[in-house]
Amino acid sequence: MQPKAITVRSLYERFPSEDLTKLGEIHVQGWVRTNRDSGSIGFIALNDGTCFKTVQIVYNDKLANHDEVTHILTGACIRVGGRVVYTPEMKQPFEIHATSVEVLGECASDYPLQKKRHSFEYLRDIAHLRPRANTFLALYRVRSVLALGIHEFFQGKGFVYVHTPEITGNDAEGAGQTFTIATNDDEGKLSVTDFYGKPTHLTVSGQLHVESFALAFHDVYTFGPTFRAEKSNTPRHASEFWMIEPEICFADLEDDMELMEETIKFCIQYVFDHCPDEMDFFDKMIAPGLKDKLNHVLTTPFKRMTYTEAVEVLQKAVQNGHKFEENNIYWGFDLLSEHERYLTEEVAKGPLFLTDYPAGIKAFYMRENDDGKTVAACDLLVPGEGEIIGGSQREERYEVLKKKMEACGNEKGLEWYLDTRKYGGCIHSGFGIGFDRLLMYLTGITNIRDTEPFPRTSSNIKF
Amino acid sequence: MQPKAITVRSLYERFPSEDLTKLGEIHVQGWVRTNRDSGSIGFIALNDGTCFKTVQIVYNDKLANHDEVTHILTGACIRVGGRVVYTPEMKQPFEIHATSVEVLGECASDYPLQKKRHSFEYLRDIAHLRPRANTFLALYRVRSVLALGIHEFFQGKGFVYVHTPEITGNDAEGAGQTFTIATNDDEGKLSVTDFYGKPTHLTVSGQLHVESFALAFHDVYTFGPTFRAEKSNTPRHASEFWMIEPEICFADLEDDMELMEETIKFCIQYVFDHCPDEMDFFDKMIAPGLKDKLNHVLTTPFKRMTYTEAVEVLQKAVQNGHKFEENNIYWGFDLLSEHERYLTEEVAKGPLFLTDYPAGIKAFYMRENDDGKTVAACDLLVPGEGEIIGGSQREERYEVLKKKMEACGNEKGLEWYLDTRKYGGCIHSGFGIGFDRLLMYLTGITNIRDTEPFPRTSSNIKF
Repeated sequence: MQPKAITVRSLYERFPSEDLTKLGEIHVQGWVRTNRDSGSIGFIALNDGTCFKTVQIVYNDKLANHDEVTHILTGACIRVGGRVVYTPEMKQPFEIHATSVEVLGECASDYPLQKKRHSFEYLRDIAHLRPRANTFLALYRVRSVLALGIHEFFQGKGFVYVHTPEITGNDAEGAGQTFTIATNDDEGKLSVTDFYGKPTHLTVSGQLHVESFALAFHDVYTFGPTFRAEKSNTPRHASEFWMIEPEICFADLEDDMELMEETIKFCIQYVFDHCPDEMDFFDKMIAPGLKDKLNHVLTTPFKRMTYTEAVEVLQKAVQNGHKFEENNIYWGFDLLSEHERYLTEEVAKGPLFLTDYPAGIKAFYMRENDDGKTVAACDLLVPGEGEIIGGSQREERYEVLKKKMEACGNEKGLEWYLDTRKYGGCIHSGFGIGFDRLLMYLTGITNIRDTEPFPRTSSNIKF
Repeated sequence: MQPKAITVRSLYERFPSEDLTKLGEIHVQGWVRTNRDSGSIGFIALNDGTCFKTVQIVYNDKLANHDEVTHILTGACIRVGGRVVYTPEMKQPFEIHATSVEVLGECASDYPLQKKRHSFEYLRDIAHLRPRANTFLALYRVRSVLALGIHEFFQGKGFVYVHTPEITGNDAEGAGQTFTIATNDDEGKLSVTDFYGKPTHLTVSGQLHVESFALAFHDVYTFGPTFRAEKSNTPRHASEFWMIEPEICFADLEDDMELMEETIKFCIQYVFDHCPDEMDFFDKMIAPGLKDKLNHVLTTPFKRMTYTEAVEVLQKAVQNGHKFEENNIYWGFDLLSEHERYLTEEVAKGPLFLTDYPAGIKAFYMRENDDGKTVAACDLLVPGEGEIIGGSQREERYEVLKKKMEACGNEKGLEWYLDTRKYGGCIHSGFGIGFDRLLMYLTGITNIRDTEPFPRTSSNIKF
């Protein structure tokens, strides 16, 4: 057994309701952020990873290894014995006066994470060390806490969590490039069929699989990795990312949008409640105004606009002199990010559901509207980010779905999916949230490469 | 908006503290398990997926569509209006007397999930429908609930959840077959380097990546899919499965084993507390004695035995006439499942930690013991299942680790991993639990293909 210590989080949580000075001799252990020594007295800022804050260690030349301690470098791992002393006149409410400082792991002097401001680009190149930097200490804690929050949210509503497969013979969207799976066959030759007997891919969505579980459990969700083999070198695209995909029975597009709005508002409130220090940091250091923006969303009903209305609004904007990069906007056109952002930022000035898209630009499983031209799909657009959710009511009518699948040629291999419409189907709907993009929205971080612990993008696999 | 209904779970939760007969007209919707009609009166067993129990619908010939209702088939999706009536003399405490029954989705008469006992093999072939069968309705709910429980457990202790990457250039174990990732290059030719610039694989473990996060956050865990391209056609092997991998700082093997024991006991208590109906079902229908077995584990301290002791015990057993399939047991031999099960079932008669394995049969990152021969690794063995956890203290000494990595030739590409020992390393440990095997252990289900929603094994990718 290793000797136990108290965590920095615990100290801050117990203060001021408990008198920490009465604890007597305590131990803390963690990593040195800075070490300043002014001869008779020295100060170490110690972070132990359990909370965003550091604790100040004060030491003097009475330490047996005082000389060693004065030479401890940023990044080193230490164990400190001492007593809590209150410092009501200082920024931090207390510090620890050290009686012992033990070096558990030295830090080489070429430590790439010195105490100064580094660019995000630089930090991406040391992804194995960047979680020790403030921005990433905050970001990955929010990521962790929000992941739990999402499970609590859906399971609190009775949803069942389904681990849909990562390796699949199908392709939910019927579009987008996928990664192919290969193994070495008996002769050591790379084969795409040897293992499973047919070509397989990394999933782009768990939706089709999770639908079949919805029709057993009423309300379900997936939350797992998905993949796109697209060489898009943009701040919003990664080749591997986590998706949350709820699917609800006895629910149409209107019910679906209600759940989307509730989900987004829940997530905002959850990170405010559970990561206050981290959200303050993002608001102050990363995206000034972030908290105001999110608070505004919390109290605002999300607006709705049909795709057809949106096209008219955009055409009018162009007529009135607004310059998009793409100004040729017509019914049937697949809106670009710049158009979506104009709608949510300039027109709605807040979250906006765009609904009822032309069938031709949407996936086969979306429910055909009575007009015969549009489908019951929606995208949720938010200022600063654009689309963060895509959802739809699913085509529940066997014959309609079958015809659409035949038309796009994917009914082979998906007979089981059609089955779900044959054996006790019902009106159902669902949506997908990219978890990494959601995190960008909630923290103000502008590159998806920073919200993922070890991001995967084309030509980027150092770790 | 679709019309709202009350869930079956809600009815059972509100009974008896609330008088359900005072609710007046209510609606329920779900799937028909059975429909028996005896002329003037008919009975439908309705399951809506929100809980394990069904609710009985009683209807009579006053229904406007009585003839249609009598012909509703098993599997159909219906919406029922009616009133709750108490039935204290029956097995179920209440039933619903229907005033309306609406068919939302018919079920074709070739429905493969008729109300009778089907073999698990048969049900695997209809994986898209089997969640509607009792065993799987129970199993996947336990899977979902336990997944949340695991997040609550670790985050309740301050652990940070890390989404380690699925696609990797490394291979944590340095052994085991992996799936290779390929994409089509610009000429449409399959390439393993075109996308990332070097060959990449599906991860076999998130451990190496999560270690670097432990050294920032103190205590962390992963919980995500992992992959093995092994054509093992056994009831315990799948090519895709979910792993939980905690990693704790300032912790040696002894601390690690304490956490493993606490984790297993937590999981048992959690499913007892949160899935009582499901656990009763498994105990009664799947694995008689299951609850006794698990309750026994809850109250028993786990035993410990070194690998060296285990070899002696097994050799003695062979000398005393015990017949294994493999009786040639010597120090350095990698114990087989039959030996592990003998140790936990016949010797320890309960959960058993085997510790301090020969370095030669364990991974490079495990900490060398002072004897120079063994490493600080352990496996947790449990009766009926064999190994369910593997863990170790990690080699924290830079020079020792570097030499081991050079010896097994994997230091190239893992420089970043070595860095974690150079920049403020500390004693740390961790372990991996196969989530699907854990579920087998907790439910008594004996084939991993049944604990996974859509299992992936060689030649098996129908869905």
